[in-house]
Amino acid sequence: QLVRYAFQRIRQQQQQQVRLCSGHGIQQQTALRVEEEDSFPKLADVPPMAAPFPMKLEHASDVGEQFKYADLSVRLAAPHQLNPKPDVDDLAFGKYFTDHMLRVSYHRRLGGWQKPEITPMENLNLHPAAKVFHYAIELFEGMKAYRGFDGKIRFFRPEMNMARMNVTAYRSGLPTFDSEELIKAMARLVTIDSEWVPHTESASLYIRPTLIGIEPTLGVASSDSALLYTILSPVGPYFKPGASGLKLYADPKYTRAWPGGVGDRKVGSNYGPTIHVQKEALRNGCHQVLWLYGDDHQLTEVGVMNVFILYMKKNGERELLTPPLNGLILPGITRDSIIRLCHQWGEFSVREEKFTMSMVQKLSKEGRLLEMFGAGTAAVISPIERIAYMGDEIFVPTESHDSPLYRRLYNTLTDIQYGKLEHPWAYVID
Amino acid sequence: QLVRYAFQRIRQQQQQQVRLCSGHGIQQQTALRVEEEDSFPKLADVPPMAAPFPMKLEHASDVGEQFKYADLSVRLAAPHQLNPKPDVDDLAFGKYFTDHMLRVSYHRRLGGWQKPEITPMENLNLHPAAKVFHYAIELFEGMKAYRGFDGKIRFFRPEMNMARMNVTAYRSGLPTFDSEELIKAMARLVTIDSEWVPHTESASLYIRPTLIGIEPTLGVASSDSALLYTILSPVGPYFKPGASGLKLYADPKYTRAWPGGVGDRKVGSNYGPTIHVQKEALRNGCHQVLWLYGDDHQLTEVGVMNVFILYMKKNGERELLTPPLNGLILPGITRDSIIRLCHQWGEFSVREEKFTMSMVQKLSKEGRLLEMFGAGTAAVISPIERIAYMGDEIFVPTESHDSPLYRRLYNTLTDIQYGKLEHPWAYVID
Repeated sequence: QLVRYAFQRIRQQQQQQVRLCSGHGIQQQTALRVEEEDSFPKLADVPPMAAPFPMKLEHASDVGEQFKYADLSVRLAAPHQLNPKPDVDDLAFGKYFTDHMLRVSYHRRLGGWQKPEITPMENLNLHPAAKVFHYAIELFEGMKAYRGFDGKIRFFRPEMNMARMNVTAYRSGLPTFDSEELIKAMARLVTIDSEWVPHTESASLYIRPTLIGIEPTLGVASSDSALLYTILSPVGPYFKPGASGLKLYADPKYTRAWPGGVGDRKVGSNYGPTIHVQKEALRNGCHQVLWLYGDDHQLTEVGVMNVFILYMKKNGERELLTPPLNGLILPGITRDSIIRLCHQWGEFSVREEKFTMSMVQKLSKEGRLLEMFGAGTAAVISPIERIAYMGDEIFVPTESHDSPLYRRLYNTLTDIQYGKLEHPWAYVID
Repeated sequence: QLVRYAFQRIRQQQQQQVRLCSGHGIQQQTALRVEEEDSFPKLADVPPMAAPFPMKLEHASDVGEQFKYADLSVRLAAPHQLNPKPDVDDLAFGKYFTDHMLRVSYHRRLGGWQKPEITPMENLNLHPAAKVFHYAIELFEGMKAYRGFDGKIRFFRPEMNMARMNVTAYRSGLPTFDSEELIKAMARLVTIDSEWVPHTESASLYIRPTLIGIEPTLGVASSDSALLYTILSPVGPYFKPGASGLKLYADPKYTRAWPGGVGDRKVGSNYGPTIHVQKEALRNGCHQVLWLYGDDHQLTEVGVMNVFILYMKKNGERELLTPPLNGLILPGITRDSIIRLCHQWGEFSVREEKFTMSMVQKLSKEGRLLEMFGAGTAAVISPIERIAYMGDEIFVPTESHDSPLYRRLYNTLTDIQYGKLEHPWAYVID
């Protein structure tokens, strides 16, 4: 009788545990299992990859008229409006801007999107009640134009940025648009300012499409007016060349994103709250924040980049992991490109799988931690060297190998971007 | 032997459960206990209240010069710049603005805060790379000026808004300022536009102090330049008069804020991501979102208001609950005022305690759910009538009583605001 009671109690507790912890508990158990058994599926098990977001979004019925590239008007800067071009060595990230910008207005009351125009770079003139100033109704994308070794200028997978921008607009209550029309208009803008695309492979022209809600009323509601604009900035490497790998600050006290939020959308709201934490990282002698989530301290992002880990399985095979797109992670285009390249190479398995700080500590202790790096458009790929985590300092031997994966990925991506490697991801403009 | 094993296993599981669920599990157990035992401390047990945030913040060492009211300059609008005053019956929330605004610039390179100025209401002229457009480096406050029955104009606890604005600025990497200097400057602004303060107790002049980061560089970093400005908008009741109580949409799929985030700071980033959810509430025939958090679906906020519940304990006594300031909740000034008033009245206990949807359902079923309401500066107090929650529709009899608490609170607060009740919370200007 007592035995039966005891076993009933065990079963009850097990059920209760699942109920109480639901999401959290189950995820944690998965990670623990991975950590314990170290048995991952072989390459052949990996299903074919889908795009990380819908590549084409239905416009909501109330968006109205779409804008067209064919309607683009151009007003060139007068000679006195031209900006001096900075020396390539002086380029910091996003500090200098070119002579022209692209803008498209949206007014629901005027029927939807208005005609796109390229104008001299000039200040925005906005009502102080514009919703963008109060409720962060704003989103953006980050892209680059690269001047290839053949002199041609290329974008990199621009249709991905545009698709992501559209899903973000939808989530923000802002109007969606036709991706291809904006790509063509941005290509025209870059062509007009083409002398600003650096003549070197160590720099590029950063492209910043931005969409803001400008309706001048204080109600917390979607904005009936919006401004879509694109500005251009010649940029050097995001992190200084010759610098050592990143030193990261991992404090589980801070969270970048959470289930039911907007961590997987490129909205301004994901960035403002990080400034304070980034300052704390700097105060602690680190370069960037390593963002953790949950009671099990799973890794989500590093600074404003996706994060990757390469490690050695117990059987001696290598495997590359990156956190899955579970709503907490920005669906990065460099991230997607890395996963696809490694799939194609087929030399080691690559999986979108949660991993935790205790896994990193364990792999480090057992000498099986090979590389960690961040990936994003601005910095391409940034090797990680150290992680400060709850009093521990974990050394990551990313740069201690002869032919590290991060470098091979960096070279392949930049070879595609600068036209040394013929690839469908490169989009030649003009 | 078997019995011993079984009991060891039970203990193991119990320990594991606490470890696995840590925060979540423990919080949930607390709530369940409250729900089960229904035994709350008596009024005398309640400790004296502290301010919900520091009333005076040390300025960071690198903020530099502070601005002073004594340096305020005033440039009045020319007659052709004056706006027509709308009819009081036509007032919507935050749609019309007065003739003047207050602005104070901050430039670290110029030594800190510049001199404050009152100017005609005019558009802001900002570089398209200004950080406010990209990274939501922005925050605001909501206050009101009330024209009393005696003709005098009053603020309501303005030092609270200023203290909250300063802690928010600090969290946003924006410069802090001296609260009193801004209150005096805003009082001057309201005096200049005093004819805009409605001559009725059904309306007031909404005051919107706003602080934005305007440095025109694209790095995700704190802004070395900022603009602090205040605009004024005559407003009628936030919700239409004579309307029935609020119908709320409670979907645990969406989360407003989370531990390690900025849910307790009045930043733009807390609002942009809610627009989409608010739209979904409207599509579902509801007025506002009831924001839930956690696996136990605890109530956090309603729309952009704090939430209160009045219920009958098993012993027949009434008790007022509102969620605690655990980082997920905006520390509302109306919220704080309600708690203090109820403490003073001493007629029923009032506690800052987590409560969950299952508690609301249980109280409703047992006929012990008395009132629920939202509280905030814009809407003062809004009675809640229905909650749509996971297929259930919970009726809240807030307006079914003879002398409901929400109405007494509303009357007391507005009596203080409109000068019918002498109270230290009223701040007479001029």
